[in-house]
Amino acid sequence: MNIENFLKNIKFDNNGLVPAIAQDSTTGEVLMLAYMNKESIEKTLEKGVAVYWSRSRKSLWIKGEVSGNIQKLEGIFLDCDGDAILLKIKQLADGGKSDFGAACHTGYRTCFYRQFENGNLVEKGEKLFNPDDVYKKK
Amino acid sequence: MNIENFLKNIKFDNNGLVPAIAQDSTTGEVLMLAYMNKESIEKTLEKGVAVYWSRSRKSLWIKGEVSGNIQKLEGIFLDCDGDAILLKIKQLADGGKSDFGAACHTGYRTCFYRQFENGNLVEKGEKLFNPDDVYKKK
Repeated sequence: MNIENFLKNIKFDNNGLVPAIAQDSTTGEVLMLAYMNKESIEKTLEKGVAVYWSRSRKSLWIKGEVSGNIQKLEGIFLDCDGDAILLKIKQLADGGKSDFGAACHTGYRTCFYRQFENGNLVEKGEKLFNPDDVYKKK
Repeated sequence: MNIENFLKNIKFDNNGLVPAIAQDSTTGEVLMLAYMNKESIEKTLEKGVAVYWSRSRKSLWIKGEVSGNIQKLEGIFLDCDGDAILLKIKQLADGGKSDFGAACHTGYRTCFYRQFENGNLVEKGEKLFNPDDVYKKK
């Protein structure tokens, strides 16, 4: 696919990155905010699963590569001024064998599992996995 | 309200900003991505409507102050690593007199009105207002 029409409309920041919101296309939940560079956008469109740029590891990050909680791409949108992306995805698990996974490395469904209310940050929702089980493999 | 418990958990970037996603709490639509600094978070919680920091104007930005498309705060969430905020809001219009407004300055309901498909950026949805009518007041 020729993606130049997409890339030329994106305003990448000084680090060559653009923030990308992942929203579950089935439930509407906002699951995470991550960053993409040109290469991660190309890989996302090529593979049909979300690929981000890890700012901490400074490398491409195939979401779910270790945990199995991959994100199947359903649609990709650009905002009005070209400096933010919205990915509509299906948050899968077990490398795609299960259709309900967790986006967050903590095991929560969404990274936005902490709500500020009555002066406190309160955890909401349930953990779908125990991080110690999932990430101790290496 | 004591919001120090919230602010101390937020990792602001080098410019003192954190990206904030606005999601309509009724429809689930992701409407926009903007930025907040400490003061805009305080104002948002104090007023109960979304207040951002405009990076272009370098000033506080009471969303909808000119257009009337204000965002009533329903909930505020912090992500796992503290560097992104999710605002659940009701996107109102006419300064709150109408309960269905547009988030985008283009008149579209959401800033993410352009989808990349089949090699092209395709506009989706309908415009709720004409920007020439709304912003020519000043």
